[in-house]
Amino acid sequence: MIGGHDARFAETESIVTPRQEIVRQDLQVRREQRAAIKRQAPRVIWLTGLSGSGKSTIANALESRLHALGYHTYILDGDNIRHGLNRDLSFSDADRVENIRRVAEVAKLMADAGLIVIVSFISPFQADRDMARTLMENGEFIEVYVDTPLQECMRRDPKGLYRRALMGEIKQFTGISSAYEAPTKPDVHLKTTTGAPSDMAAEILQYIDVARS
Amino acid sequence: MIGGHDARFAETESIVTPRQEIVRQDLQVRREQRAAIKRQAPRVIWLTGLSGSGKSTIANALESRLHALGYHTYILDGDNIRHGLNRDLSFSDADRVENIRRVAEVAKLMADAGLIVIVSFISPFQADRDMARTLMENGEFIEVYVDTPLQECMRRDPKGLYRRALMGEIKQFTGISSAYEAPTKPDVHLKTTTGAPSDMAAEILQYIDVARS
Repeated sequence: MIGGHDARFAETESIVTPRQEIVRQDLQVRREQRAAIKRQAPRVIWLTGLSGSGKSTIANALESRLHALGYHTYILDGDNIRHGLNRDLSFSDADRVENIRRVAEVAKLMADAGLIVIVSFISPFQADRDMARTLMENGEFIEVYVDTPLQECMRRDPKGLYRRALMGEIKQFTGISSAYEAPTKPDVHLKTTTGAPSDMAAEILQYIDVARS
Repeated sequence: MIGGHDARFAETESIVTPRQEIVRQDLQVRREQRAAIKRQAPRVIWLTGLSGSGKSTIANALESRLHALGYHTYILDGDNIRHGLNRDLSFSDADRVENIRRVAEVAKLMADAGLIVIVSFISPFQADRDMARTLMENGEFIEVYVDTPLQECMRRDPKGLYRRALMGEIKQFTGISSAYEAPTKPDVHLKTTTGAPSDMAAEILQYIDVARS
């Protein structure tokens, strides 16, 4: 250790002057600057709902609208998370909690980077969604309930998963053999049987008030 | 399932017309579009080196320069990963591998989102750094060796960690009781004792050729 300097600066002492060390701290790029360069406020738009409820379709419609308006977005969903970051996790309750914990942490990093993040995960437990909200800045987290009745999801069954779950081929399937806790106070409540995905995206846009620009 | 349609479209069939379904696929925001809106090519600039080698200082200097040039960046380092996403991991060899695997997956997502990502981790094993490279697009991954001799890192010892490691208070400390595999063919080799952090940042900028704009 060198003299009485703050330990945080000590690492640089042998290669820059003390004056530069202090300046370096000021130069660090902060959250606000990253958001400013993108001319947008970071958001984490969290879509929760049953399998087959239409989360991915709505997420894509929303991202397309936001992109057309010039916003910088990213979708976190099962495709890019379950096959990559979270490929070591199963569908047990414990691993579902860990799955959502990691997604929430990545969403936090991306919001910190200045992005508008759209999370599209079943995320069946209210406690996990509440945990995700507490990770973010005030007002940044938007819980969107993609409310499609279970009967309708089973009727659509786009991937044949409900059929397999009912036959016992898939264990721990949300809505069949694993719980889904509907949001009690979602920020946006989408009743998907009342309109097209573009209408649902418009409802979210209206809530986050970015469509004005 | 509905008729002979592609399963990927089936989920939307009850709420949009078939024509819209196909259009929806075209509307999806792709990697190239996200990068275009940011007017930059995504990069993963991976700084590897011993504890105390100056990775964080150089990462901050590099980010400041890139930010001043109008680029959208983000730093992934121990502070925002080990205390969040990876707070469940220890410093055992197995957990170090998992630590780097997750960081690499997050860097991949951020590059996919169009960002220039600066990763600042000791990342002691070549196999892990090679794994990270394979996750990214061709030419996107830049391995930067922050080459500060162990003796110099021990002399600086900004956080007093080497002292504690030598006293046996910290187990599995890289360079003392855990291996560090220096990059054999780094894309950029920074000899930190030859210049200030800003010089090191300039060397990286020159390599990635973004300083021209």
